[in-house]
Amino acid sequence: MTAPSSMLHNWHEVPFTKVKITDAFWRPRLEVLKKVTLPSCLIKCEETGRIANFAKAGGLIEGEFEGIYFNDSDVYKVLEGVAYSLMLERDTALEDDADRIIELIAAAQESDGYLCTYYTLVAPESKWTDMEKHEMYNGGHLIEAAVAYYEATGKRQLLDVACRLADHYDRIFGPGKRHWVEGHEEIELALIKLYRVTGEEHYWKFACWLLEERGHGHGVGAIWDKPEWGPPYCQDDVPVREIEKVTGHAVRAMYLYSAMTDAVHVSGDPAYVAALQRVWAHTAQRNMYVTGGIGPSHHNEGFTEDYDLPNESAYCETCAAIAMVFWNHRMNLLFGDGKFADVVEREMYNGALAGISLSGDRFFYVNPLASQGDHHRVPWFDTSCCPTNLARFLPSIGQYMYARMPKGIAVNQYVQGEADIMLENGNGVHLKQRTSFPWSGGVELEVFPAADGVFTIQMRVPEWCRGYRVCVGGEWLSGVEAVVERGYLSIERHWSAGDTILLELDMPVEIFRARQEVQANEGRIALQRGPIVYCIEQSDHDKLKYDEMTFSARERLLVEHREDLLEGVTTLRGKDGLGRPCQFVPYYAWDNRQPGYMQVWVREKQEEQLYNY
Amino acid sequence: MTAPSSMLHNWHEVPFTKVKITDAFWRPRLEVLKKVTLPSCLIKCEETGRIANFAKAGGLIEGEFEGIYFNDSDVYKVLEGVAYSLMLERDTALEDDADRIIELIAAAQESDGYLCTYYTLVAPESKWTDMEKHEMYNGGHLIEAAVAYYEATGKRQLLDVACRLADHYDRIFGPGKRHWVEGHEEIELALIKLYRVTGEEHYWKFACWLLEERGHGHGVGAIWDKPEWGPPYCQDDVPVREIEKVTGHAVRAMYLYSAMTDAVHVSGDPAYVAALQRVWAHTAQRNMYVTGGIGPSHHNEGFTEDYDLPNESAYCETCAAIAMVFWNHRMNLLFGDGKFADVVEREMYNGALAGISLSGDRFFYVNPLASQGDHHRVPWFDTSCCPTNLARFLPSIGQYMYARMPKGIAVNQYVQGEADIMLENGNGVHLKQRTSFPWSGGVELEVFPAADGVFTIQMRVPEWCRGYRVCVGGEWLSGVEAVVERGYLSIERHWSAGDTILLELDMPVEIFRARQEVQANEGRIALQRGPIVYCIEQSDHDKLKYDEMTFSARERLLVEHREDLLEGVTTLRGKDGLGRPCQFVPYYAWDNRQPGYMQVWVREKQEEQLYNY
Repeated sequence: MTAPSSMLHNWHEVPFTKVKITDAFWRPRLEVLKKVTLPSCLIKCEETGRIANFAKAGGLIEGEFEGIYFNDSDVYKVLEGVAYSLMLERDTALEDDADRIIELIAAAQESDGYLCTYYTLVAPESKWTDMEKHEMYNGGHLIEAAVAYYEATGKRQLLDVACRLADHYDRIFGPGKRHWVEGHEEIELALIKLYRVTGEEHYWKFACWLLEERGHGHGVGAIWDKPEWGPPYCQDDVPVREIEKVTGHAVRAMYLYSAMTDAVHVSGDPAYVAALQRVWAHTAQRNMYVTGGIGPSHHNEGFTEDYDLPNESAYCETCAAIAMVFWNHRMNLLFGDGKFADVVEREMYNGALAGISLSGDRFFYVNPLASQGDHHRVPWFDTSCCPTNLARFLPSIGQYMYARMPKGIAVNQYVQGEADIMLENGNGVHLKQRTSFPWSGGVELEVFPAADGVFTIQMRVPEWCRGYRVCVGGEWLSGVEAVVERGYLSIERHWSAGDTILLELDMPVEIFRARQEVQANEGRIALQRGPIVYCIEQSDHDKLKYDEMTFSARERLLVEHREDLLEGVTTLRGKDGLGRPCQFVPYYAWDNRQPGYMQVWVREKQEEQLYNY
Repeated sequence: MTAPSSMLHNWHEVPFTKVKITDAFWRPRLEVLKKVTLPSCLIKCEETGRIANFAKAGGLIEGEFEGIYFNDSDVYKVLEGVAYSLMLERDTALEDDADRIIELIAAAQESDGYLCTYYTLVAPESKWTDMEKHEMYNGGHLIEAAVAYYEATGKRQLLDVACRLADHYDRIFGPGKRHWVEGHEEIELALIKLYRVTGEEHYWKFACWLLEERGHGHGVGAIWDKPEWGPPYCQDDVPVREIEKVTGHAVRAMYLYSAMTDAVHVSGDPAYVAALQRVWAHTAQRNMYVTGGIGPSHHNEGFTEDYDLPNESAYCETCAAIAMVFWNHRMNLLFGDGKFADVVEREMYNGALAGISLSGDRFFYVNPLASQGDHHRVPWFDTSCCPTNLARFLPSIGQYMYARMPKGIAVNQYVQGEADIMLENGNGVHLKQRTSFPWSGGVELEVFPAADGVFTIQMRVPEWCRGYRVCVGGEWLSGVEAVVERGYLSIERHWSAGDTILLELDMPVEIFRARQEVQANEGRIALQRGPIVYCIEQSDHDKLKYDEMTFSARERLLVEHREDLLEGVTTLRGKDGLGRPCQFVPYYAWDNRQPGYMQVWVREKQEEQLYNY
């Protein structure tokens, strides 16, 4: 049984290798990523023994395992980031360093394919006894790195390691073999990637089997027995096709849903479709911060009750915001609906981007929406998943810009640059996008098909935009031909080289109020302009104490682009409730100046008013 | 005792004769006013015997009084409109016609100065027995017409009639003489105009005495005795300095407050200041429709309970909207606060402008915010105050554009054209304003002082604008120098000929929700873009029944300027809650196509959402 075809759009990804980013917002971040973030992550992996663990497990050097049992994954994730960086720009030194590390990884693989340096070095007799110990989680990240490195360099060594590992899993676990509920999802989406690059269907089937293992009481390990965690913590409380609500550890949940979405791309399984739609609505409409952050609780690094969205104590792990991108991008491709790309955008410019300093070498694990001044980015963590997730997320953001539809091209994110997209009929289309996003809402797209022809270009009109105008080939579109459907403006025409689309998106300052169930935000407002969520910082408000500011939703704000501030940001300047000057800065850029307090949701200065807007 | 000087700004009006309007929005309306509205009003005054009543009262022709006792006022108001039109452009035929009518008016004045054709012809023995019979109301409009005609032509005949009439009042009424509470305010503001043009202080004192007469039980006449009307109907329930709430007949209340505001300009009386601030807040924050309409009830042509703002049965007399302009313009000058100019703008583009057809010869008396299709403009009314109020309001709208401040110039409304303003130091400043208001938010102001010098130009940032940018002399203003205070951006500098201010006001589509006390709008939203309130009309929605449409606040709208529609309007096109195409058009332009339903507040399609904006 398959889902109604009208529901599934099955768009295809346009890989970031086909997308060149040249704009003033992302280009500097990609350069810092390459020059600072990747090298500093590699050094940290070295310094903390994460890389040496492979050498030790492979018997190349003597020594004990250092760190935590999931530390292998950080090395894999940095390698994945290195691979993406190499795809964008070859770099012999970086590649040589990666090759050296890959040699160590290969050496650490046991003869039967098993690979997890913690168990090899610490407890070889205890393999596969505790499903929470991240054995397959580590393996999943190895697979993702291997696929990326193979695609970047054509070198098979790490891919061969990955296949041997996956084959090893497949031999032990599966229908008629042993059960397994991996405590931290990741392996499932990795196996689907491995299937795609190798064409080996058994990887896909094994991924699907792993998905189906959940929710049947097969989970074994410490967390399952802890009453305060239990099966919901790792999404093992119900079979995946029965999921109603987002539960447990946020990153785990998002990785699970990502894999489920991938699976539907192939299977079209309507039970999965329905489950995904339910859990997406439950996540986005009841459990997502305005920054895109998810998972309010430190206790389980995840979800609690609906609308429980405290600001100061918000956990909002950086990895969870990145994982929301992974999932929502897949949902966008599957359903062809802009509302998912809206979430991708919200994370890209807010929840995920806040995780890294402008300097590229300091990171947040936890992303509160308010801080009294004691929360700051640091260079590394014992559990350093977030820096290494950023290391692979940022170089690959180009993949979220476009999608290939059966009828043409969807433009999902507005980032200046160029792209090459192959239509389904084999016609190649070169695109040039000019924009000052996220600081202003004008976008010009120049279209250069290899051969003139009829196809469709869909331009996303973001959720924050109420009014837009669009001009195609010099003519302003009118009426029904320019109505937004499923978040997109659809332009079907005969395209010739040099044809242009000019899209003007109103980008006003928006005042957000949370629904009343969100107790933390009662009497508070937040400001957003375009995709950027704003905050106040102590640096700009020396005379105001923490949480002292009030602000009227009726205040008018100077929209000022300041190249001198925070590497170029548009600030919003006005007066607070007592008439004192105040300034809002982008949330993603907070804690990049002298330490101090920060707030996204500020107290609203109540004013008697008949009409709200 | 005077009010704190910080509170009163005492700006001065820049007369519309110093303001040339050239834009695509108002210019055609002014032309239609001159070519169609004024002639058709004169013809109607002739046809209905309104003008003949003067000839009869003057003994020039035989015959009985025709019509209603306040009909003289319509002739005066058209004459006032004619005078304004002549100020903008001389027209011998029109002036000759006015002179002819003025001769008749002069003839109708009795030897003691009394002038009211109803009493002269119908009940001369009953003069000054019923304070509701509009004797001084008529006189007030005579005075306004006389002042206008004198300023337009330099001819004193009508002004002399007006002075004789005012002197007549002054002889009968006043301290130690008879009490008088004019049932329909108007005389008070007229007397202050007469004081300004003649310099005769006793007119001002008499106006102030009339204001003070109210609320002391002096009112006599039928309406005072009717329990359902009583003293509040004509604002005779409390002394004016004790006013807390807007009450009774809307036009009367607004004329009263206008006169009170004028009085404070001279007196600075803090009790009046406080009363005006109280009653303004009560009017604007609890009793004003989103269109600027006021007075929901047919019964009293006025106010009822706070937040009683029904849509279909809304009365919202056109005169009341115009009177809101009169009052709020005066408040703006007195307090130097843009929030009053915001109301002027709301009326100019919505509540008042809806009163007249695009053709200029059909009028609404009543302006509902929803109609099932049975409410249409007509050429004239028995009580025809609204057409004649439009006839004097429209040609004089130039006066709302600018104000002269002690320190310089305030720019209140954005209308393309030119202006000449004399600063207090005698330096003349020529201004050129270029803008596409109300359809887009960019304004360029070119400044040509006769002599270079330091002064301030204040640009209003309207209430609907959350974000703005401003560039002065080629430099974008920054930070505190461009913060909005009391609704204005204040630019103090040394100005030389050709210096420019470029103001960019974000003009997004705004979704309005009424506060919950407004039961009529529960579950409904209204759309506004810039100063323009939108509505839906049946013409654009053949397949939808009345009040059937739902609309999501999250819908994105094509902002399309259509020169082919309603003489050029920007429409908002999108999809309704069921995905059908829908179109919003400016409220002021409704009922200019085939008859059909109209709604400003449409049912909101409810969608689960964490954050509202």
